[in-house]
Amino acid sequence: MIVGVVGGGQLGRMLALAGLPLGLQFRFLDPHPDACARRVGDLIVGAFDDPDALARFGDGLDVATYEFENASADSVRALAQRVPVRPGAESLRVAQDRVLEKQFFEEAGLPVAPWAPVDSLDDLRRAIDAVGAPGVLKTRTGGYDGKGQARISAPGDADAAWRAVGERPSIYERFVDFERELSLIFVRSARDETAAYPLVENTHIDGILARTDAPAPHIEGAMQRDAEQRVAALAARLDHVGVLTVEFFESDGRLIANEMAPRVHNSGHWTTEGGATSQFENHLRAILGWPIGPTACRGPSRMLNCIGDTPPPQAVAGVPGAHLHLYEKASRPGRKVGHITLTGANPAALDAAQRALAEAIGPGPCPALAR
Amino acid sequence: MIVGVVGGGQLGRMLALAGLPLGLQFRFLDPHPDACARRVGDLIVGAFDDPDALARFGDGLDVATYEFENASADSVRALAQRVPVRPGAESLRVAQDRVLEKQFFEEAGLPVAPWAPVDSLDDLRRAIDAVGAPGVLKTRTGGYDGKGQARISAPGDADAAWRAVGERPSIYERFVDFERELSLIFVRSARDETAAYPLVENTHIDGILARTDAPAPHIEGAMQRDAEQRVAALAARLDHVGVLTVEFFESDGRLIANEMAPRVHNSGHWTTEGGATSQFENHLRAILGWPIGPTACRGPSRMLNCIGDTPPPQAVAGVPGAHLHLYEKASRPGRKVGHITLTGANPAALDAAQRALAEAIGPGPCPALAR
Repeated sequence: MIVGVVGGGQLGRMLALAGLPLGLQFRFLDPHPDACARRVGDLIVGAFDDPDALARFGDGLDVATYEFENASADSVRALAQRVPVRPGAESLRVAQDRVLEKQFFEEAGLPVAPWAPVDSLDDLRRAIDAVGAPGVLKTRTGGYDGKGQARISAPGDADAAWRAVGERPSIYERFVDFERELSLIFVRSARDETAAYPLVENTHIDGILARTDAPAPHIEGAMQRDAEQRVAALAARLDHVGVLTVEFFESDGRLIANEMAPRVHNSGHWTTEGGATSQFENHLRAILGWPIGPTACRGPSRMLNCIGDTPPPQAVAGVPGAHLHLYEKASRPGRKVGHITLTGANPAALDAAQRALAEAIGPGPCPALAR
Repeated sequence: MIVGVVGGGQLGRMLALAGLPLGLQFRFLDPHPDACARRVGDLIVGAFDDPDALARFGDGLDVATYEFENASADSVRALAQRVPVRPGAESLRVAQDRVLEKQFFEEAGLPVAPWAPVDSLDDLRRAIDAVGAPGVLKTRTGGYDGKGQARISAPGDADAAWRAVGERPSIYERFVDFERELSLIFVRSARDETAAYPLVENTHIDGILARTDAPAPHIEGAMQRDAEQRVAALAARLDHVGVLTVEFFESDGRLIANEMAPRVHNSGHWTTEGGATSQFENHLRAILGWPIGPTACRGPSRMLNCIGDTPPPQAVAGVPGAHLHLYEKASRPGRKVGHITLTGANPAALDAAQRALAEAIGPGPCPALAR
């Protein structure tokens, strides 16, 4: 069986590393000939909207998926003429538009922060008035890791913010006073089977995920069940197949949905060592219509992103309980180039491993180690 | 860093699957263009003793290793002119000759069954007389999984046995009355660091490994320590770098060394899910001179070989705690084409998973399921 992945980045690479042992083969479509997934499957070099590249990519695939939500919906529709594409076009359409996303969250019963769509500077002024400040203006489409966003502290910031997002169709959301950020890695299969991993706690630094703790400490059963049920409703409404990730703010004991990703997610990377089945394997099982594997934690784990630069592998290897994952991407400021998962018997063991890691590699490669 | 592997079979494939996340790249030398490691690295197609292929294979490698002990010692020596080859030529020379192997075992203090070298039919008759029967005649070189061997029940079997092994230089060993078979996966690094996994229990069916239980039940601390110390002495004597596997018989509470493999081993496949660090990653760490990772069990696990044919992956996926590893090798009677690792909280959970697996796939692909 050949699985096609639109995008040949680290998520595609890790999908293949999880799928090769299952006897699957992989083909990637990526505009960059040095895409880091090329080591673990065939790479078709071409633009995502190049009909010829798409045709070569789609030829003979058993199923196709995508590893990032900015794949063009038109391309995915064209591909879907040839081969089942999972998740489907609806998940992609909604994930690409922050206004649709909020609407779907609300329809699924997921609480969201007060928000309003913004198509003009006048809209923005009205939105700030109606929704309140402080808040954030985000373009409806595009943008990730803090790009395409502008903070608004008071109504007077409207002009600058509107220019900062390029005067593009946007959404204005009031800031949420939150205690922490959580995410739920959810899976729904082509046979309508569903499962969820335990909620995890995410720490962002400079707008980029720096650390995930799995499971999130101090989660009550009711909160986990509530999140699972609402995300299940969202997945059903999207007819989503594969991993679906929803990021939340926890505020006064309540979960507020922030955004979704229709794919495996950085906050699920811990599942490779820390989960009974990895998010990558479960995404593949789901899109192939196979049974979903158990989603329990094997123990506590902690994921630290390597951002901008990679640590010396032999230094990481010297820290018991540290598991290195490099993506073979060139170093560049702000770029995710790898991650390290810490495993241990209990959270104190993770803290000890983290201190040993900081000692071994310094805080440079992992922003979370500087804290 | 580029790691070269002589041989492109499943062991090479699993070495690469473990090493890619560490940022390593792989190159394989194998006579078969469809070698199953080709998906995870560059494949040089050529005979192991083809100087041109060896030169192309060795060019620019950081380190080379081998995934089977029948690589020609001459080729390895030629390769070693260009690049560090680990384990070294001495491990290979000893592993390729059952007489040398027994001598090294004895020198390291590892008890062995009574044995004698056999170079002629007369030698064999004298050996049976001196060592006793029943026993087994094995060619000194070549042969694995029960090939190149002949059983001898009584002195009168000598003629037939001598013909059965092709009248080649051989070793005669008295049968050991044993309760079970165990093996020790040991690692020694280029920096002389050593570590050992817990002893595991192996079940062979028709001369081929069918099942490994990790850790082996009912092992006393003294037996584990004793095995580790003697194998450490063997590894030091060989100046071995990398994983070194020794298979034992347990007889009356005593370990008798049967044979060694200077490489990652089928009885260590459970370490991918069941070990704190996999044997594949630790072999790579060792040959690169990196620190060795922890070798404890993460919990009990059981490995079942798929022999001759592969199970339907979706059926295996339906068994919680079952982890499938297919090698992308064509089905053929007696051929190892994959394995399944069962993980669970305790041995009873493994038994339950095994029953569910037998129910799901039948006994065909895994001989151990027929028991």
